[in-house]
Amino acid sequence: MNDTIALLQNHRSIRKFKDTVIPEEQIKQIVLSGQAASTSSNIQAYSVVVVKDPVKKQKLSELSGNQQQIVESPVFLIWLADLNKIQTAIRLHEDVELKQNVETFLLGTIDATLAAQNAAIAAESLGYGIVYIGGIRNNPQQVTELLELPPLVYPVFGLSIGVPDQEPDLRPRQPLEAVYHEETYHNERVVSAIRDYDEVTRHYYATRKGGVGRGGEQETIWSREMLRRFNSDRQRGHLHGFLTDRGFELK
Amino acid sequence: MNDTIALLQNHRSIRKFKDTVIPEEQIKQIVLSGQAASTSSNIQAYSVVVVKDPVKKQKLSELSGNQQQIVESPVFLIWLADLNKIQTAIRLHEDVELKQNVETFLLGTIDATLAAQNAAIAAESLGYGIVYIGGIRNNPQQVTELLELPPLVYPVFGLSIGVPDQEPDLRPRQPLEAVYHEETYHNERVVSAIRDYDEVTRHYYATRKGGVGRGGEQETIWSREMLRRFNSDRQRGHLHGFLTDRGFELK
Repeated sequence: MNDTIALLQNHRSIRKFKDTVIPEEQIKQIVLSGQAASTSSNIQAYSVVVVKDPVKKQKLSELSGNQQQIVESPVFLIWLADLNKIQTAIRLHEDVELKQNVETFLLGTIDATLAAQNAAIAAESLGYGIVYIGGIRNNPQQVTELLELPPLVYPVFGLSIGVPDQEPDLRPRQPLEAVYHEETYHNERVVSAIRDYDEVTRHYYATRKGGVGRGGEQETIWSREMLRRFNSDRQRGHLHGFLTDRGFELK
Repeated sequence: MNDTIALLQNHRSIRKFKDTVIPEEQIKQIVLSGQAASTSSNIQAYSVVVVKDPVKKQKLSELSGNQQQIVESPVFLIWLADLNKIQTAIRLHEDVELKQNVETFLLGTIDATLAAQNAAIAAESLGYGIVYIGGIRNNPQQVTELLELPPLVYPVFGLSIGVPDQEPDLRPRQPLEAVYHEETYHNERVVSAIRDYDEVTRHYYATRKGGVGRGGEQETIWSREMLRRFNSDRQRGHLHGFLTDRGFELK
């Protein structure tokens, strides 16, 4: 164990922030740390928009399911899968369209995610709290217009950064056996690992402190939450249409 | 600047490893660090297979474009987007299929990537070198058979970890202006940012030391490399068919 591993393993999402300003030099170091992450064959098929403007944060909050932490956080980063940069680079040489499929979509998505996670860790190492906002995909077309995103760019998620104004419990993760397999995938162990985790989460959900945007105490277990979530039609069914409208090919 | 940010910004991919064994306790800490990463609504829709068996690593190397670093690295982690776990959890309550679309595909992919990047940083903090292996998507069906992956699971990428046996140059990233936008996306700046980066990479490609799996000195620039790469049909066109065969819906 070292300080970096302790930092990683001490992560909890922060959903309530003080209105302390983050110095520009620190924002720059956070983004540069993101840029230092691995990128597939150095294509760097991502970019990031920083939003500090309160009016714009308010709009983004409304578009993301009224997540108040977006308004409260002094810095809101929207991470973008960006094939526009690649297309622009190609057009400096030949007037052709880049060849796309689900692989190129993945390249941008993975590059953006690797960079964002490095930035999140850099922010946490500076004492800030962070939370990812997948809700940015609730209304991606409106987000696209607000941020003036060109075609071949889509918002993967947001990242709120600020000084924490809460100390949430560490959320227990799945037991190692549910996640980690040696040499082959051991599907025969998955049910018992889920049942073990269900018992851990039964206690967690029953006793956790309710934070902003969280439910507070509930009688539930993890597997039941998965049923509730994935047996509904609330799964951003607009996303495929949005992505193809913006020029992504998912073939 | 602090030690963690210095670690992040000092990242370079390592493609040549000593055959030093990584203690089991450290592998565990690396995976636990991965598990501590953010996950969308705590779904933890990913898992990881560790491969240490030399015969299996040799096969995975052949399936990934003969990347020798897979064979050399003592620990090869294959990160999986895993909706099988979610489906299994749901079936503990009701005999229904989880509802899928491109959003659920993204959830698993992003969860796997966040966890992997945390694991990569944990490994680097322990003095190991890492390299991501996107080539694991070259022959995903064969990888699936070799690792006995159930349906609704796909290999996103591999991650080789080991004691570095090379000191590659730090690869220059794009200038901040190519990546970082304030308040809105500034598309009008992208061409000049790419041209600036092209000059930086002209020097880098011309003078870099050739490492394992790298080309060595070349007369090229970044934007030309993008043309070469994205104007070809080498874009893993099999991936869509593979993913739908494995039960993923990309609608």
